[in-house]
Amino acid sequence: MKVGTKHYRSIWFNDDIQAVQIIDQRWLPHDLRIVELISLKDFACAIADMWVRGAPLIGATAAFGIAEQMKRDPSDASFNDAWETLHETRPTAINLRWALNEMRELLKTAPQEKRAEIAHRRALEISDEDVECNRQIGLHGLEIIKKIAATKKPGEPVNILTHCNAGWLATVDWGTATSPIYHAVEAGIAVHIWVDETRPRNQGAQLTSWEMDSQGIPHHLIVDNAGGHLMQHGDVDIVIVGTDRTSAHGDVCNKIGTYLKALAAKDNNIPFYVALPSTTIDWTIKNGVLEIPIEERHSDEVTKVWGKLEDGSLGRVQISPDGTPGSNPAFDVTPSRLITGLITECGICEASSEGVAGLFPERVLD
Amino acid sequence: MKVGTKHYRSIWFNDDIQAVQIIDQRWLPHDLRIVELISLKDFACAIADMWVRGAPLIGATAAFGIAEQMKRDPSDASFNDAWETLHETRPTAINLRWALNEMRELLKTAPQEKRAEIAHRRALEISDEDVECNRQIGLHGLEIIKKIAATKKPGEPVNILTHCNAGWLATVDWGTATSPIYHAVEAGIAVHIWVDETRPRNQGAQLTSWEMDSQGIPHHLIVDNAGGHLMQHGDVDIVIVGTDRTSAHGDVCNKIGTYLKALAAKDNNIPFYVALPSTTIDWTIKNGVLEIPIEERHSDEVTKVWGKLEDGSLGRVQISPDGTPGSNPAFDVTPSRLITGLITECGICEASSEGVAGLFPERVLD
Repeated sequence: MKVGTKHYRSIWFNDDIQAVQIIDQRWLPHDLRIVELISLKDFACAIADMWVRGAPLIGATAAFGIAEQMKRDPSDASFNDAWETLHETRPTAINLRWALNEMRELLKTAPQEKRAEIAHRRALEISDEDVECNRQIGLHGLEIIKKIAATKKPGEPVNILTHCNAGWLATVDWGTATSPIYHAVEAGIAVHIWVDETRPRNQGAQLTSWEMDSQGIPHHLIVDNAGGHLMQHGDVDIVIVGTDRTSAHGDVCNKIGTYLKALAAKDNNIPFYVALPSTTIDWTIKNGVLEIPIEERHSDEVTKVWGKLEDGSLGRVQISPDGTPGSNPAFDVTPSRLITGLITECGICEASSEGVAGLFPERVLD
Repeated sequence: MKVGTKHYRSIWFNDDIQAVQIIDQRWLPHDLRIVELISLKDFACAIADMWVRGAPLIGATAAFGIAEQMKRDPSDASFNDAWETLHETRPTAINLRWALNEMRELLKTAPQEKRAEIAHRRALEISDEDVECNRQIGLHGLEIIKKIAATKKPGEPVNILTHCNAGWLATVDWGTATSPIYHAVEAGIAVHIWVDETRPRNQGAQLTSWEMDSQGIPHHLIVDNAGGHLMQHGDVDIVIVGTDRTSAHGDVCNKIGTYLKALAAKDNNIPFYVALPSTTIDWTIKNGVLEIPIEERHSDEVTKVWGKLEDGSLGRVQISPDGTPGSNPAFDVTPSRLITGLITECGICEASSEGVAGLFPERVLD
């Protein structure tokens, strides 16, 4: 999407310098920094320390990480080392494993001298496929927003609540949850976005707000506590979120707090949609609440908050007493019964085993 | 309660200096500052700018504010000015109006020369009554915690989740939601507290954590998003929160985000209790969601977070882009259907018009 007048993706291969570049998202919204990823350690660090985040972007980054490693050393040992190193960076996002396994399948029978080229081409393809996939998600989601817009008075916006950043910064472009929003804006539909700040890391405040601000889309930042109240008072027409992993039964593992918004949407009869590329579906998992492992992150993310200080520099404030420890589960699982529908690149389905299997019958495991 | 070895209340009249003193809570948990409130403006400012907060403490502060004003000028005009000035400081807390009206009733027939003494005595009484009221709430709530503790293996703590600060800092002493906790600890019951940070102002992180830390009670700070996930996984035995205003039908207006926790508790069959002095019941209001006005506070509270900087000084960080506005409803209403029971100074009742009327039959309005 655009930043100012220039079009960006969140990751790309720069032919001029023959290197992978990313937006280092740790500095947003205060600073737009572009960095190169060269070594395997660079790629692993970029994922683990969240220079890049979001399931689809993590997948694309891992694919590029394998490709660059194959250019340096295309041996099996080198591949396995890269696979393991990248795989252990983040435990929850299914796309990471998907992208790494995709590379493994492709490279295992390829001669070593061809691996660099094959892997590079596939990493570019994975990026392009992600962009196209998200475009399709946007087109399907647009139809839902159009229907809500048709019930509004002229000029009255469709109020959309979103949690975390399932925006173009979380994918290669368009985003998942934001793609219907961007398509609605392109179609001339008036929208207003409630942006959940999404503690502890504030991806909503930092990234989704920045995306909305960059595109000139009307929005308000709210604390994660506010959504239920807004829904009770008719100020939310639809909730659209992303997902890091989706179970074969339609349960959705997304940023911590998503479950609470789904409960509030259900309690107020507000449609709650999850936008996802089908690569986030983990066909081996049925009951998401019981089976999906939840990453426990560092206590400091809870007790300290990062941002721009009054002098313009960037830093952190500690919000709690020195003696108080934080507990920091990074994701939660929203049971399918709370979800109105899943918006995928292949269309919209019910969040249920039948719904998911209906859209992707060839992928169902016994 | 104790801070180190010294016992504090949150507000008191210091006979040595003949002045009202408070803990200026804006600096907690990083600095314990005691300040005097002298002028009417001091009292109004202390409430409006949240040097003191919490419905019962706001009530006590308003009462002292009237008393000090009566010492300076006991005229009707002076009283009315004080009443109006104090009343407009915070719109939601019912205790503020209750305390002001209590003073009006008492003073309207009193001769001017007696007003200072009468008002001073009543302000002290309101403080003492609050302490005793909260002690009773604690004793009633203790019985609920005892029953849960009886189901635990030896040494296994009762996991209690609380939102915002309904602690001794929000009252004159003991707190409302924390009083059962403090009484449980005194009774030798092992407890562990999940402290919701409570954005935007982080009263949980700053005040409840500080209370728990000061008393040596095991606790973890969590983001407001985490409670639902913890409940799904059996890590919460009971939720106890406070309330700023309770409707005659048992709906509860408390800090924004309470409603989301109540939904999650209901979804996971976890008891959700609200602890309250009966002064928070607004007998004129039936449907809390429709009738209780919700204070909209400044956007800066959402976009900026206050705390201790890395150099030890206190300051704020901005978490969002310059172009992003915040929206900041300060409270939400939890419908009675989500509440297991109300813990009052007179006992525990169902959150319903019958339940509330059953405990306080003499106060019901037609």
